[in-house]
Amino acid sequence: MTRTSQVANHPFDEAMALVPLAPSADEHGTDLPRQFDGRTHSDYANMVGPFGGVTAAQALQAVLQHPQRLGEPISLTVNFAAGLVDGPFRVEARPMRTNRSTQHWAVTLWQTGANGVDAVMLTATAVTAVRRSTWSAVDEPMPAALPPSSVASQPLMDRVRWVNRYDMRLVAGSIPKHWDDAEADSLTQLWLRDNPPRVLDYASLTALADAFFPRIWQRRARMTPIGTVSLTVYYHAGLEELAATGDGFLFGQARSQSFFNGFFDQSAQLWSEAGHLLATTHQIVYYKE
Amino acid sequence: MTRTSQVANHPFDEAMALVPLAPSADEHGTDLPRQFDGRTHSDYANMVGPFGGVTAAQALQAVLQHPQRLGEPISLTVNFAAGLVDGPFRVEARPMRTNRSTQHWAVTLWQTGANGVDAVMLTATAVTAVRRSTWSAVDEPMPAALPPSSVASQPLMDRVRWVNRYDMRLVAGSIPKHWDDAEADSLTQLWLRDNPPRVLDYASLTALADAFFPRIWQRRARMTPIGTVSLTVYYHAGLEELAATGDGFLFGQARSQSFFNGFFDQSAQLWSEAGHLLATTHQIVYYKE
Repeated sequence: MTRTSQVANHPFDEAMALVPLAPSADEHGTDLPRQFDGRTHSDYANMVGPFGGVTAAQALQAVLQHPQRLGEPISLTVNFAAGLVDGPFRVEARPMRTNRSTQHWAVTLWQTGANGVDAVMLTATAVTAVRRSTWSAVDEPMPAALPPSSVASQPLMDRVRWVNRYDMRLVAGSIPKHWDDAEADSLTQLWLRDNPPRVLDYASLTALADAFFPRIWQRRARMTPIGTVSLTVYYHAGLEELAATGDGFLFGQARSQSFFNGFFDQSAQLWSEAGHLLATTHQIVYYKE
Repeated sequence: MTRTSQVANHPFDEAMALVPLAPSADEHGTDLPRQFDGRTHSDYANMVGPFGGVTAAQALQAVLQHPQRLGEPISLTVNFAAGLVDGPFRVEARPMRTNRSTQHWAVTLWQTGANGVDAVMLTATAVTAVRRSTWSAVDEPMPAALPPSSVASQPLMDRVRWVNRYDMRLVAGSIPKHWDDAEADSLTQLWLRDNPPRVLDYASLTALADAFFPRIWQRRARMTPIGTVSLTVYYHAGLEELAATGDGFLFGQARSQSFFNGFFDQSAQLWSEAGHLLATTHQIVYYKE
């Protein structure tokens, strides 16, 4: 696998650059909420508003940038309360409880509407922890697949900008070529990484967890309107495993278990090319019909 | 299958009976937080403190009892910030955003410590929605198994009270008989329902989603201390599907994908005996060694 050098100003880093607001006089203590100004990034635009994976990563980023943060991410749940509008937002990370080695977070993201009123667009919770070395095991092995160098890179959806920020190499389960209502399995397997390549961190891993195209489009060969309602990521990697992954490809696999009256689920895994299961992720998605 | 009549005062109903605090004068508007007093129930005691499944159900119950609640549960994520102490608690359900057909919730649960200070013990988020009838499909079919009437009921753990409040009939993957470090698959399949039987609702379905014994005990045949850190439930059933299930058995299946430096995941499914996938659920669990 050819490693490409990092670019100086990666658009993902630009998207993650939250600007901390100066804490007010009574907010200088420990365990207090901190607010940040951020904005959606045009390189990660979706059909309407921003790609939800980058929005989820920005929610995590508020936790990562909080000066009292303890340890590394263990879990993140992001609830998309409304579709973000392209432009600025404010995000707050609040430590709800700090234990000896774990910390629980609440995150809220607002945008100011045309009426001048701030509206909640996203809520999230996260757990961070100081990990210790223990007995470990991967019970979901990476499926056999040709290496990424042997698979053609192809944009899986051609109408949205954010897919150009990922190098996706499909192994199984493509987006339908014909929207003919031909039902199929919901399983997709692919190699994927940032484009241009970028060394993996918790924020980019979070965005990658949401980079699968909607399962229901593949399952039904029908392009019904969809929107992720809630996304959970479990992190099974420390800084060492992220560093070992570098800017290499991840192997991703996603499928659904239930489509029921307007909401379907998706469960997915992301492995490093060396076979470490870096993250497991689940989401529940609204669909119109 | 023999249906048993409901008991008058089921302990689960006692556990779910949250007492609403009178809203203060400035809290009579719409979309405002409501607080409730609740307490742990001795019938659902765990080794230390209460069974987390009932605590998660109590968090959902605060949403269900909120007078402005819109629709039925779609997803719930509960973060166990600290181990609850047996006794009273206060829980608040706050609507964070109400849309036309979906509603986003934040839940916080406090207990008063020996020092007289309130401490956050749990945070949660939930999404409720008014469902519409759409194309639907179950892509995770219920595994083949003998019917519950042909499987012996057995308490899977004999040292904790809460397991007596469930009728569990193991199909595959038992808790180890010998704690001899013999590694095994983490898969468990079983029939389960409330004991005494009780007609299924969203709260009891939530508790059942956490009723699997710790995967790592089965995986390693070693009883390392554990504690669920974050639990997510996706509901794939409306009131009609819950009513059709009645007080019958559910078929449950649980397994893990990753055990890594102190935290393992669990993914599980719960089907009605007729094969409707009622809920899928995921959790990340701390383990000591």
